[in-house]
Amino acid sequence: GVAPAVHAQQAMRWRIASSFPKSLDTIFGAAEVFAKKVGELSGGKFTITVHAGGELMPPFGVLDGTSNGTVEMAHTAPYYFFGKDPTYALDCAIPFGLNSRQMTAWMYQGNGLSLMREFYANVGIVNFPMGNTGAQMGGWYRKEIKSLADMKGLKMRIGGFGGKVLERIGAVPQNIPGGEIYQSLEKGTIDAAEWVGPYDDLKLGFNKVAPHYYYPGWWEGGPQLTLFVNKKAYDGLSSEYKAMIETAAAYAHTDMQAKYDAKNPAALKTLVSQGTKLHPFPADVMNAAFKAAEQIYAELSASNPAWKKIYADFSAFRRDQNLWFRFTENAFDSFMQRQKL
Amino acid sequence: GVAPAVHAQQAMRWRIASSFPKSLDTIFGAAEVFAKKVGELSGGKFTITVHAGGELMPPFGVLDGTSNGTVEMAHTAPYYFFGKDPTYALDCAIPFGLNSRQMTAWMYQGNGLSLMREFYANVGIVNFPMGNTGAQMGGWYRKEIKSLADMKGLKMRIGGFGGKVLERIGAVPQNIPGGEIYQSLEKGTIDAAEWVGPYDDLKLGFNKVAPHYYYPGWWEGGPQLTLFVNKKAYDGLSSEYKAMIETAAAYAHTDMQAKYDAKNPAALKTLVSQGTKLHPFPADVMNAAFKAAEQIYAELSASNPAWKKIYADFSAFRRDQNLWFRFTENAFDSFMQRQKL
Repeated sequence: GVAPAVHAQQAMRWRIASSFPKSLDTIFGAAEVFAKKVGELSGGKFTITVHAGGELMPPFGVLDGTSNGTVEMAHTAPYYFFGKDPTYALDCAIPFGLNSRQMTAWMYQGNGLSLMREFYANVGIVNFPMGNTGAQMGGWYRKEIKSLADMKGLKMRIGGFGGKVLERIGAVPQNIPGGEIYQSLEKGTIDAAEWVGPYDDLKLGFNKVAPHYYYPGWWEGGPQLTLFVNKKAYDGLSSEYKAMIETAAAYAHTDMQAKYDAKNPAALKTLVSQGTKLHPFPADVMNAAFKAAEQIYAELSASNPAWKKIYADFSAFRRDQNLWFRFTENAFDSFMQRQKL
Repeated sequence: GVAPAVHAQQAMRWRIASSFPKSLDTIFGAAEVFAKKVGELSGGKFTITVHAGGELMPPFGVLDGTSNGTVEMAHTAPYYFFGKDPTYALDCAIPFGLNSRQMTAWMYQGNGLSLMREFYANVGIVNFPMGNTGAQMGGWYRKEIKSLADMKGLKMRIGGFGGKVLERIGAVPQNIPGGEIYQSLEKGTIDAAEWVGPYDDLKLGFNKVAPHYYYPGWWEGGPQLTLFVNKKAYDGLSSEYKAMIETAAAYAHTDMQAKYDAKNPAALKTLVSQGTKLHPFPADVMNAAFKAAEQIYAELSASNPAWKKIYADFSAFRRDQNLWFRFTENAFDSFMQRQKL
């Protein structure tokens, strides 16, 4: 049945199941920022508590948990649900996708939000963009990668969609929980691992066991985090409480990207001072991965109607965004990056 | 005296004086988006009306108008008040400053917001970031600019800080209202003019009278728009209404950048199809302008303590941001921009 209408001032207690550990303070923290803002907006009447991955349900159980109403809300990276349907990844990141600003433009002013809402309606969820990490790094490697040949047989810790592309260019993707990456790299059970970027990676100390740090993380050029809200619970809210969710999520969305941007530079400097070697991926690796990704997208478009519909819009938007960004945005950034500041 | 405390549910009617005409729908529209969100958040109890530049006061009168309480709020580009104190420009854009994402990071997670709040407290204003255009274009030129020598004596419509830098490299900045630029360019009274970017420039038709369109707009790499709130009026609000202003401004902030990003590509394609010639500024123009800007900043730091304090923080943040962005962000963007998408 439909939940009863809620009056604006009615006291509410809701929970957010996060997919993330508290140690990822930037990502986990976005849900806390959101909950705090909703509390302020409602004068303390709409109380939301945030629960780390595993506390209420497993980290990857939050899609089902929100869908079936076990929790009212979740905060997650939708590409985790790539195995259920790769279309989820279009709400987060696909290899060679949109950068952070372009992703926000697609969601706020392109067709992204309405297309993804239509898709999520099938599982009884209403989605709100809530955070982005910016372009991630391409991970830590025990040995230097000099050309595409060095990717053959490379055992790399990487999840989801990026792993599928790496497989096509000869690497062997491995699924390893965050807490076990360090030991696996140290022992040489794996040859490489990707995590996030300087701020988060430094905390886990990967640089001590794999000195070569590659960029760009082409599988995550601007991964978006998403707030899931159970649709029945959402529909029962007053229009004021709905607006509070929307604007508090917008605040947390912008604040999380700002946090990564503000924190990454100092971490990068520390990593380099400790001997980390920064390298761009060789051109043949980038080109082969791009080609493999485009092949996978064409195959999915042939087999998955939801993917086909949303990816068509996403990729047209991506084409236009890159046409425009390559002029004044790139010229300004590149000039500034060449100066002694 | 201090305004009386306002209860959360007390009906309020406030006004925003915009510095912009309704025809700049992206910028003017951000204030309308903000007002609509506050209305939704408050269940219609906090009503805010938006007034175009000139309707309640002249476009550049909004700083004084908010400061003295003639209006409760204004939406403006603080570099308009460069003549009163160049420190205002640090809340908007200075030549060779931060890009859009970096500016948001400085405000949300660096020291930008607290430093600017301290500065605005002197005029009884509380500021909130509310919009960004992204990197603007470098304007329209009747003749091609092949080197720095072509800038000597060039009569260009450009305001504020950018004009000061252009003057140092030999150009002659002109102050001309938006509505008169087209005719001045057509007649040859001026040789060049800058406005915003493809979406706004196309509407004014500059391409018909000055075919050469340069990039990047180095004087506006990520200009931020700001919401001014009269401090006494703000202090009298309930904590709920204060939170509504903050989160609705965050929503409008992110939405405005998204709108420019979504709208600029199609306008650029139209301009090029109509014969517009896109050119990067010659390297000697960029280098001379950068050097002149740095000289001006050093002079201001020697003479203006408020500038000195805030610019020191801004420029350290700028250095670190560009150190970081030149790796994974730039490599990802540049690769994507080279692909056939």
